[in-house]
Amino acid sequence: MYPNIQLNSDGKLKHFLSIEGFNKSLLTEILDTAASFVNPTDGQIKKVPLLRGKTIVNLFFENSTRTRTTFELAAKRLSADVLNMNITTSSTSKGESLLDTIRNLEAMFVDMFVVRHAVSGAAHFIAQQTAPHISVINAGDGQHAHPTQAMLDMFTIRQHKNDFSKLRVAIIGDILHSRVARSEIQALNILGVKEVRVIAPKTLLPAKVETLGVTVSHNLIEGLQDIDVIMMLRLQKERMTSALLPGESEYFKCFGLTEEKLKIAKPDAIVMHPGPINRGVEIDSKVADGKQSVILQQVSNGIAVRMAIMAMAMQHKGAIV
Amino acid sequence: MYPNIQLNSDGKLKHFLSIEGFNKSLLTEILDTAASFVNPTDGQIKKVPLLRGKTIVNLFFENSTRTRTTFELAAKRLSADVLNMNITTSSTSKGESLLDTIRNLEAMFVDMFVVRHAVSGAAHFIAQQTAPHISVINAGDGQHAHPTQAMLDMFTIRQHKNDFSKLRVAIIGDILHSRVARSEIQALNILGVKEVRVIAPKTLLPAKVETLGVTVSHNLIEGLQDIDVIMMLRLQKERMTSALLPGESEYFKCFGLTEEKLKIAKPDAIVMHPGPINRGVEIDSKVADGKQSVILQQVSNGIAVRMAIMAMAMQHKGAIV
Amino acid sequence: MYPNIQLNSDGKLKHFLSIEGFNKSLLTEILDTAASFVNPTDGQIKKVPLLRGKTIVNLFFENSTRTRTTFELAAKRLSADVLNMNITTSSTSKGESLLDTIRNLEAMFVDMFVVRHAVSGAAHFIAQQTAPHISVINAGDGQHAHPTQAMLDMFTIRQHKNDFSKLRVAIIGDILHSRVARSEIQALNILGVKEVRVIAPKTLLPAKVETLGVTVSHNLIEGLQDIDVIMMLRLQKERMTSALLPGESEYFKCFGLTEEKLKIAKPDAIVMHPGPINRGVEIDSKVADGKQSVILQQVSNGIAVRMAIMAMAMQHKGAIV
Repeated sequence: MYPNIQLNSDGKLKHFLSIEGFNKSLLTEILDTAASFVNPTDGQIKKVPLLRGKTIVNLFFENSTRTRTTFELAAKRLSADVLNMNITTSSTSKGESLLDTIRNLEAMFVDMFVVRHAVSGAAHFIAQQTAPHISVINAGDGQHAHPTQAMLDMFTIRQHKNDFSKLRVAIIGDILHSRVARSEIQALNILGVKEVRVIAPKTLLPAKVETLGVTVSHNLIEGLQDIDVIMMLRLQKERMTSALLPGESEYFKCFGLTEEKLKIAKPDAIVMHPGPINRGVEIDSKVADGKQSVILQQVSNGIAVRMAIMAMAMQHKGAIV
Repeated sequence: MYPNIQLNSDGKLKHFLSIEGFNKSLLTEILDTAASFVNPTDGQIKKVPLLRGKTIVNLFFENSTRTRTTFELAAKRLSADVLNMNITTSSTSKGESLLDTIRNLEAMFVDMFVVRHAVSGAAHFIAQQTAPHISVINAGDGQHAHPTQAMLDMFTIRQHKNDFSKLRVAIIGDILHSRVARSEIQALNILGVKEVRVIAPKTLLPAKVETLGVTVSHNLIEGLQDIDVIMMLRLQKERMTSALLPGESEYFKCFGLTEEKLKIAKPDAIVMHPGPINRGVEIDSKVADGKQSVILQQVSNGIAVRMAIMAMAMQHKGAIV
Repeated sequence: MYPNIQLNSDGKLKHFLSIEGFNKSLLTEILDTAASFVNPTDGQIKKVPLLRGKTIVNLFFENSTRTRTTFELAAKRLSADVLNMNITTSSTSKGESLLDTIRNLEAMFVDMFVVRHAVSGAAHFIAQQTAPHISVINAGDGQHAHPTQAMLDMFTIRQHKNDFSKLRVAIIGDILHSRVARSEIQALNILGVKEVRVIAPKTLLPAKVETLGVTVSHNLIEGLQDIDVIMMLRLQKERMTSALLPGESEYFKCFGLTEEKLKIAKPDAIVMHPGPINRGVEIDSKVADGKQSVILQQVSNGIAVRMAIMAMAMQHKGAIV
């Protein structure tokens, strides 16, 4: 629980590190703010001058072109200046510590760090250590959290399903290693869905997963019944040892989403995926590109939601959202 | 022939993929638009707000600092936001397909792809597949086309030689592997020059080269007679096998442009090269740096011409050129 | 001595390559201009439109994220467009010469080169060769000079010690290999300090070091007496052979700055370091993070000082500083 560090003394957003610790009201404010950036007639997002003169540093200790790109675009749409720092190639190779790197960037009058790191808790650590005038956004830390991904997913669900309280949501795949799943489960519970159901083989579920506020199924066919929203996870092949999984084709046979299996869910169920997708591994191309898929809308919504979070976190620096 | 895909339904420029399929009127409009960006008193190019709020993605699947730089500068002079993506280091390494990368970028509300790719036809493929609101500019695809290079060459020729219809133009070097040559030949013919003469050893000419609308010479000394414009090609050493060429010094002896050989052409002939030049391989330094050389003017003109093409392709999105 | 090349015919700053050749008046003008960019109430630096429409190229032949970042931020605060070129990955790998690279960038209507190079004299060479409309800023060349670092150090000293003429300044560490030390010694002498004292083992001092305008001590405890300003140097481990130094711990024992040794200097002495610091090698963490340390202020001042130098060098292009 990190409520204090993420909020200012007046309860406004300061850092965005993890979904836990936020209440329904603040998550809803983020969704509403994101909606305000989308042009209702053509769905496009115009450039706004909210963060003109502010400097946002993409502090990526782990390479991720896709995520960096969405944050860079969101920052530019807010008229901020963006500095991309791939720290693996920076002066840490000269032996400078992470803290010294942070101190130096602070001293350069930057306003925000967007942090991606392979170690769980890295964004929290930086937020705890950094100067009071700087906001930190977690763009994914280890297996801990990916809260902006969760919020764009919530935004996408709200576009299609008005009332969270009536929804049964299935999250399918490698729950054990997924920071996306962890953040999604938290957000769905805070927003008050009727049920979050995780569907995965036992080897890909954390111990005592029910304590996260989910029901559990080990069978895709059973698990998809009555589901309104299907959230697929990417199979992180690089994270898995042969002990956990029998093989890609076997996985697809049991837990891959096909057109046939999709029919088990409610007829108006939507299919989500954080991308990049492994076609034929966790999801069939016909489903990924099918009419129930909202995967590309998730990408679009990622810009609006990240703009909202960045702008709200900068309110204490004069941004009027 | 790709007239339909490159033009909008009202005949305006949409994509710029290949010179073929355009008519003299449209090429001339590009040249005139480019001229309008150049300050007549000092030759400088001022920043204009034509593409403010638009996002241009440099989608480079093949590393080319020089070409990327000119497109980035042109985009910034138009006040666009620029996103540089070196795709070899991006999530394609996570197994994402080209099409999925394109779909994701589209969903991020970008407006234009500037594509460089080692495979011929890659820019066409992307233009065919991409969403209707996106324009595609070919920044060089395999051995197929490099149409913006051809247009800046035409602009440079027009600066020095008013009437295309009176010109004899020689293109010298590795015609076989050169996307630049292919695009130049097309542009020169559309603009109506009197003669395009290719000068190269037989091993560096495509089969039935005359069908492209050129005359052929295998001898530099004979070939340079009566020539108004000399377009050198870069010797792509990395593309050639020993079977095609006897060696650099032998090549220079036969096809390298020296001061002595330059005298064979008309006294006011101009010397062009797309760069980067191999001094002492295809061109002598005295010629490259001599008073008939317009090589650096080509670089300058590259900014104006790329601005013109980008701005015209964005007209359907509200840019008033 | 490079007075002519660094100044315009009317004595205004054109290039900033080396401290030598400037007089006290011009260095003071830089410090005053830098001060004008700092908001007196909160110490922040606002974005100003001084270089709007100008293009600044970070031409880095040697990787340095930290220095590049400060120049990029300074340029963006001046509203310039910035082009980052890591030349090790550019078309020089296609065999293009440095001069051809420079000529091409010139032709693209850029306005300034910020040059970092491993070879001493590289920035001078480029300034001598480049077109008259382009300014060159030296961001560190070999073991020769790092003049913007020296100026931000002078700015920091002036913040704490009003009158240069009363100061005794110690520079401690590897004077022999340090471009920072060379530039600092020149700036301190031009600004008229009472004494510049270098403190180092004999193996880390250049021959005839006294001719640079310094006094010499080989003993830290003796050398620190009566000192107002302590300038530590980074131990460039990668530059040293075992012949020069007995080892890090031995070095720290003799020349590392500890709290105890700091007490030998004047009670209000300030401690400076160009960063990145080697904690426990040349400086103890308690000193680096202590109340006499101004190391992070140096970083902040680096933005203001680089803005000042860039803006002044652009005066001939219409920037009104």
